[in-house]
Amino acid sequence: MWFQHTLTLPPKRRGFHLVTREIVDAVPEFAQVRVGLLHVWIQHTSASLTVNENASPDVRRDFERYFDHAVPDGWPEFEHTLEGRDDMPAHIKASVLGPSLTLPVSAGRLALGTWQGIYLCEHRDRASARRLVLTLQGD
Amino acid sequence: MWFQHTLTLPPKRRGFHLVTREIVDAVPEFAQVRVGLLHVWIQHTSASLTVNENASPDVRRDFERYFDHAVPDGWPEFEHTLEGRDDMPAHIKASVLGPSLTLPVSAGRLALGTWQGIYLCEHRDRASARRLVLTLQGD
Amino acid sequence: MWFQHTLTLPPKRRGFHLVTREIVDAVPEFAQVRVGLLHVWIQHTSASLTVNENASPDVRRDFERYFDHAVPDGWPEFEHTLEGRDDMPAHIKASVLGPSLTLPVSAGRLALGTWQGIYLCEHRDRASARRLVLTLQGD
Repeated sequence: MWFQHTLTLPPKRRGFHLVTREIVDAVPEFAQVRVGLLHVWIQHTSASLTVNENASPDVRRDFERYFDHAVPDGWPEFEHTLEGRDDMPAHIKASVLGPSLTLPVSAGRLALGTWQGIYLCEHRDRASARRLVLTLQGD
Repeated sequence: MWFQHTLTLPPKRRGFHLVTREIVDAVPEFAQVRVGLLHVWIQHTSASLTVNENASPDVRRDFERYFDHAVPDGWPEFEHTLEGRDDMPAHIKASVLGPSLTLPVSAGRLALGTWQGIYLCEHRDRASARRLVLTLQGD
Repeated sequence: MWFQHTLTLPPKRRGFHLVTREIVDAVPEFAQVRVGLLHVWIQHTSASLTVNENASPDVRRDFERYFDHAVPDGWPEFEHTLEGRDDMPAHIKASVLGPSLTLPVSAGRLALGTWQGIYLCEHRDRASARRLVLTLQGD
């Protein structure tokens, strides 16, 4: 069984945002899948996806502090500066965190750990809406 | 064909550990799969999975040295410090390395390169057992 | 439906290289897949795969500048130095960027965003040919 949907998330401020609920709600066929996988793809190169702690907002703020420190805006070595001081750092962060997730599905639901949630990682100051492709497959 | 198992790895010391054998042994159905994929998911946010050099223990020690330097314990900018100096760095490392692997399967076995092995990356000082979900699919 | 191919890319200079076309051309069965996934695996531990901006060569040069700065050749803390000053940094970069991609397929083609391209990330000064395993599945 294969199901595919697109999901457009409205523009979010720069930072890390929990979007588990939005993603699960966009796939009505979960209940049909006993064993399977959900693949989530972001069709952009300056935002990314990861899974991390779903409870404390301070964890998500620390993600932003750390990555802004590790890949600084306006780093003087960057050559690709035409689209702004935050553009090239956004590309780098997007590849470090990655453009996709593949998540296990068991008994009709995501088999995440208790503390795991899906983050949309928005790396631009002025973000646009972000388009995801969700592909559910299974038995 | 779909097969799904859980595998609980006993607590390991902080660092990078080869677990290819444990993972392969937990999936008895490999021989039935001519072409397929094995998906490995860790249900935690302070440990992660990667694939790297399977021969030299010094490579795994250098992974630990490098990541401990890149994401220092007790970094003064971190706000989420309640669970210890190693907690927030563990969350960051877990997302940089990632919570899952998808591995090719050919002719009944993992189609890894000669030097590739699966690492469990334990980022906490006092780790608990780590639970994995293994999903094998194929033809 | 499952299809699996190997693709050997000739040696490339150290840096980030667009290889979307080579990968698509190595999988003749795309047109048969209405909904599916393409999995790409690199069988090496000192080169990696990512997806990022497919238009400006300066973005790819900035990737190299940034990662060479973040994981410096000959970092004095490295113990595994036998295979050269660029060897251990290559292993680290390979795990940060990752050994695989899983890409959505819709209506017989990769469902990438307009600006997304596949990069082969070559982390060694003297690279050999790089072998990929391409697994296409779908409906």
